[in-house]
Amino acid sequence: MELMGGNLFGERFQLISFGESHGVGLGVVIDGCPSEVIFDEVILRKELERRRPGQKVNNISIVSDRQELDSPEILSGVYQGKTLGTPIAMFVRNNDARSQDYNEIAQKPRPGHADDTWKMKFGHTDPRGGGRSSGRETLARVMGGAVAKMFLNQCFPETKIIAYAKQIGPLKLTPEDCLEIETKITSPYEVDTFSSRCPHAIMNSKIEELLVKAKQEGRSYGGEVIVLIKNPPSGLGQPVFHKLKSDLASAFMSLGATTGVELGAGHEATAAEGSQFHQQQTQAHYGGIRGGISTGETIQFKVFFKPTATVLDTAKKGRHDPCIIPRAIPVLEAMAQMVIMDHILWQRQDRASLIR
Amino acid sequence: MELMGGNLFGERFQLISFGESHGVGLGVVIDGCPSEVIFDEVILRKELERRRPGQKVNNISIVSDRQELDSPEILSGVYQGKTLGTPIAMFVRNNDARSQDYNEIAQKPRPGHADDTWKMKFGHTDPRGGGRSSGRETLARVMGGAVAKMFLNQCFPETKIIAYAKQIGPLKLTPEDCLEIETKITSPYEVDTFSSRCPHAIMNSKIEELLVKAKQEGRSYGGEVIVLIKNPPSGLGQPVFHKLKSDLASAFMSLGATTGVELGAGHEATAAEGSQFHQQQTQAHYGGIRGGISTGETIQFKVFFKPTATVLDTAKKGRHDPCIIPRAIPVLEAMAQMVIMDHILWQRQDRASLIR
Amino acid sequence: MELMGGNLFGERFQLISFGESHGVGLGVVIDGCPSEVIFDEVILRKELERRRPGQKVNNISIVSDRQELDSPEILSGVYQGKTLGTPIAMFVRNNDARSQDYNEIAQKPRPGHADDTWKMKFGHTDPRGGGRSSGRETLARVMGGAVAKMFLNQCFPETKIIAYAKQIGPLKLTPEDCLEIETKITSPYEVDTFSSRCPHAIMNSKIEELLVKAKQEGRSYGGEVIVLIKNPPSGLGQPVFHKLKSDLASAFMSLGATTGVELGAGHEATAAEGSQFHQQQTQAHYGGIRGGISTGETIQFKVFFKPTATVLDTAKKGRHDPCIIPRAIPVLEAMAQMVIMDHILWQRQDRASLIR
Amino acid sequence: MELMGGNLFGERFQLISFGESHGVGLGVVIDGCPSEVIFDEVILRKELERRRPGQKVNNISIVSDRQELDSPEILSGVYQGKTLGTPIAMFVRNNDARSQDYNEIAQKPRPGHADDTWKMKFGHTDPRGGGRSSGRETLARVMGGAVAKMFLNQCFPETKIIAYAKQIGPLKLTPEDCLEIETKITSPYEVDTFSSRCPHAIMNSKIEELLVKAKQEGRSYGGEVIVLIKNPPSGLGQPVFHKLKSDLASAFMSLGATTGVELGAGHEATAAEGSQFHQQQTQAHYGGIRGGISTGETIQFKVFFKPTATVLDTAKKGRHDPCIIPRAIPVLEAMAQMVIMDHILWQRQDRASLIR
Repeated sequence: MELMGGNLFGERFQLISFGESHGVGLGVVIDGCPSEVIFDEVILRKELERRRPGQKVNNISIVSDRQELDSPEILSGVYQGKTLGTPIAMFVRNNDARSQDYNEIAQKPRPGHADDTWKMKFGHTDPRGGGRSSGRETLARVMGGAVAKMFLNQCFPETKIIAYAKQIGPLKLTPEDCLEIETKITSPYEVDTFSSRCPHAIMNSKIEELLVKAKQEGRSYGGEVIVLIKNPPSGLGQPVFHKLKSDLASAFMSLGATTGVELGAGHEATAAEGSQFHQQQTQAHYGGIRGGISTGETIQFKVFFKPTATVLDTAKKGRHDPCIIPRAIPVLEAMAQMVIMDHILWQRQDRASLIR
Repeated sequence: MELMGGNLFGERFQLISFGESHGVGLGVVIDGCPSEVIFDEVILRKELERRRPGQKVNNISIVSDRQELDSPEILSGVYQGKTLGTPIAMFVRNNDARSQDYNEIAQKPRPGHADDTWKMKFGHTDPRGGGRSSGRETLARVMGGAVAKMFLNQCFPETKIIAYAKQIGPLKLTPEDCLEIETKITSPYEVDTFSSRCPHAIMNSKIEELLVKAKQEGRSYGGEVIVLIKNPPSGLGQPVFHKLKSDLASAFMSLGATTGVELGAGHEATAAEGSQFHQQQTQAHYGGIRGGISTGETIQFKVFFKPTATVLDTAKKGRHDPCIIPRAIPVLEAMAQMVIMDHILWQRQDRASLIR
Repeated sequence: MELMGGNLFGERFQLISFGESHGVGLGVVIDGCPSEVIFDEVILRKELERRRPGQKVNNISIVSDRQELDSPEILSGVYQGKTLGTPIAMFVRNNDARSQDYNEIAQKPRPGHADDTWKMKFGHTDPRGGGRSSGRETLARVMGGAVAKMFLNQCFPETKIIAYAKQIGPLKLTPEDCLEIETKITSPYEVDTFSSRCPHAIMNSKIEELLVKAKQEGRSYGGEVIVLIKNPPSGLGQPVFHKLKSDLASAFMSLGATTGVELGAGHEATAAEGSQFHQQQTQAHYGGIRGGISTGETIQFKVFFKPTATVLDTAKKGRHDPCIIPRAIPVLEAMAQMVIMDHILWQRQDRASLIR
Repeated sequence: MELMGGNLFGERFQLISFGESHGVGLGVVIDGCPSEVIFDEVILRKELERRRPGQKVNNISIVSDRQELDSPEILSGVYQGKTLGTPIAMFVRNNDARSQDYNEIAQKPRPGHADDTWKMKFGHTDPRGGGRSSGRETLARVMGGAVAKMFLNQCFPETKIIAYAKQIGPLKLTPEDCLEIETKITSPYEVDTFSSRCPHAIMNSKIEELLVKAKQEGRSYGGEVIVLIKNPPSGLGQPVFHKLKSDLASAFMSLGATTGVELGAGHEATAAEGSQFHQQQTQAHYGGIRGGISTGETIQFKVFFKPTATVLDTAKKGRHDPCIIPRAIPVLEAMAQMVIMDHILWQRQDRASLIR
């Protein structure tokens, strides 16, 4: 007998993720969401659509062609368009097609997948398609993030969480491109108009070309995503172990394919000399967090991804993502939304005026 | 009234950190350490010595000249040289010199410090020298890590956690140097024979020269540290939110000056093509963790640091660290030791043979 | 905006309860159940049947006549008749009849119900039939307890958790009757053959008579339940805050109608003189727990219930329970099953032989 | 190797208790206390004095004659008479006399003590005087409760937590006596003027007589304590698993000698008929909690104690407590103070007006 834990995320806004990628479906229960949050099912469906395989922009698909409907059912916690304050449960059923191919996977661990570490740990490879290690588990996170987004939209409408692709494989935006994008952008939906979620017309075309070919030829790529939290509340984060940077790093590194994160200047800060570095107090340097606590400036994280491994699975040509980044972007946003909401609820215990 | 939380670290091996940098002292309580661990006070003192300001190697000091004795008192949990299974409390008193200069700090927030975010959050700058944001808080972590190290030495003697400086400011080892170091090294104490904790004789000399001058002239530098966990138990980590990479990232990012982390190939993985990347299944690629679970191969993390900010505080020339990395290395090791021990205890619930 | 938390139960075997009594349904997610537990749906259905309103024994019904099917759907965590080690989600849909009568409840708080405290706390009475305060929430607990029961049946088959009614309103068994029952009884299903769950033929008849009349005439009664944990593993419980008696007391007091609990001799111990008391070291005295830790002897708890309040709701004659005890018994058993399983998992970290 | 956990108490106001009864001392760290609470050391010392063995009222001692100074040192979290918002650590050193007699205890388990269950669980009897099972551990709780009391005094000055002895061994107050006491009493210090903490002059004299004799002759007694929370904030408690009654029951049952608890009418509610019971909506019936949530009326709990076991230890005549109740009363109050403060902090997340 073996057990698995660690399916609970968050301290005040708590989410439990459940479901297997080839089982009945994927779901989530949220405990700790305030009542009277306007529950906007359009947001929920839109966020699920944004991470869905099979999506196309301008009729171009650079992601997996698998067709999954991902239609959520609200099981509890919502009444007459508002949250009740009770636990919110949501569930997305798998379509039948997901239930095949079990034996195949059970018999040979796929290179680069977790099949072998899973076997080592639990004594068996979950025969149901990678089980909890599957990228499909991120459905649950997107549902959780959507609820946090509804809360933020309502209570902190200035705060915008936007992620975009800076690099995919060999194709990478310049710092100047990024600066321009980050200055102008106001919504994640602007990013969505680019199939690669790299919001730069020329680069997006190049990426489309790269990935369409990669999909045909069985290649895959990693890359880099920028996560922005614009106009965040200040004062979020705790000074020691729950620094905001620590909780965001943990959240982003809980995605399967991530290999690193950086706050603000990140790696570039390593070569700088201190008096110069600190006198240029720009957001790009500190990334909007100091002493573990948000300053109110834009929070900027970089997240690195390795190339997807499924590409090697030649039997599934066309059904894999040649690069996971376009579909990972809404998942990263969801993780950030949950972390920010968690710390907002936490902060409500921090301020003098809140007692009595 | 405001409150602060988040001073508790870990899930099974739980540590609570307490104390202010200019108060009575710094301490720690550990709940969840098994009994019958041989409590080796030599390890405890040695680890504290390794992070202490004022330390010298071959009579060269490239760290703060502040003299702090950092002598720990064991308040509970240990009897006749072994842990009792009860909470282990340890305390290090501050020497009197730490209690001065309060007003000065209270009056002007130091650039790059957390003084201003702290003020924003808690409505006051802690007049006691940065309070919990101070680097001195890491004393508590080193004490916690020392206990985890005793446990690992006893139960998993093959497992060695070793961190070293790869880069300090403009001075950086080549990948070939790193490969050679990482292949040969067997103990963190080998690293300690270099004052910079960059275990490469020529580079160490250059760094000494850079930092001795920086200390005199009030400059500071960041850099990059490699954290190795050699011969770790396999099967550590949970598949979803408590992936081992996620918990290690969170632990490292909970240090004040860190700006980023990478697992294995990290950022380099972003430009690679997938079928090539995954066919070279080297430790350098995956960093010893797949699907969030340790494979048994060496776990390799990179941790980035920005330059220290205290350097700007011209009034304290000679008392600052021109680069925090040499003293941060034992703290990173301590965080890794605690995460590994936590997951070892967690894993004890995972295996068939352990029930009945 | 208000929020509610505290829907998470347990430390290692963790259950989150969700759903509203007049919403879509009631459900549960369990995190921390080992894999390879034989998942016996018969047990699950039987336990749900045991707490269901509308149940009859020998064609006599002394509980609410409401007809609820309570048919569970397994949403995750189970495959080919065994637990996977992943979170186990289960859901029971409400039938349509539950969705009526909202306005009525919203308009006048019912005496003795939580409607008014709820309003005070959350600013509104949940219009959906008492929401989470409803006794229907206990469905989730019974599902969680059923899984713990499957685990106990498989790994600790000697351990039997059995509750029975000792007293209902003015009708009460003698200590001698109880002693005889507790000595002989080997399964909760023996208790089920009595409609009142008082396993004494004559007393059961009297109770049936009392409650049939009470149901017609709109009266209600409380009473006393004995919870036995026969042949429990020894060594369960932690010495300070998670004493086994403390966790069981908390679990039982989390049921709506409970007004008190006693371990072993309980109240009777208050008048005894110590040297006599302690020299009679019988199970009846200590209740099977000493120093917070199970001794391996039968654990015995008494749980007191106040009369149900719904009885006052004259509009619903026949649909209320004249005494909640017969239906609360499987819920108390479920709570005990989960506490015992939680501590068994916890204990796996306690023993020398389990490391390496 | 074995480990022990469960030394952490509370959800928002979190306390970790450490120390062994015959080790260096006993201590506590509190995480989650707001800053700017006026830290009144007089309260701290007074509360410690109230649970101290060797105390006398009017020169009569009915408790253990052991002399323990119990002088607390504040290690962190307090500055210039106020809490800082950082973790508050406090420590009381044991005097040397406590360190003797180890071998004796190690060799023969004392009847009624936890020595044997401890041995069963941890493989050894802690040779240091019962270790964490000792009543001396309650020192830590009293320190935690004192901080909660300071907070309540400042923010909720109307709220008074008062416990008193209703019964000691065969001597018991009538309900009328209790009603009169509960109506009049306004402070725990009024109770302290009676050595037995039974605030009724005649009964107190009888108890003194009983216990003075018991102490000489090696007898011991249990009894019943009433815990009152007068003028509590309304709306405390969560509707499902963290009902206020459930958390208080758990807190009281975490004391070593307790055998039962009752809320309000408690056991008496079992025999009542419902329509009568609920129409008499007095505090005595509901105990101030409905639906798990405080109504604002006086919260009333009964707590039952068995006779102390140490009495059997004839070698220690005069050093035992013939009845633990007088000294347990400040510990029960401390537990209640911490639970109430925890839920006040929790409630700050519950209310609409607190966001933005």
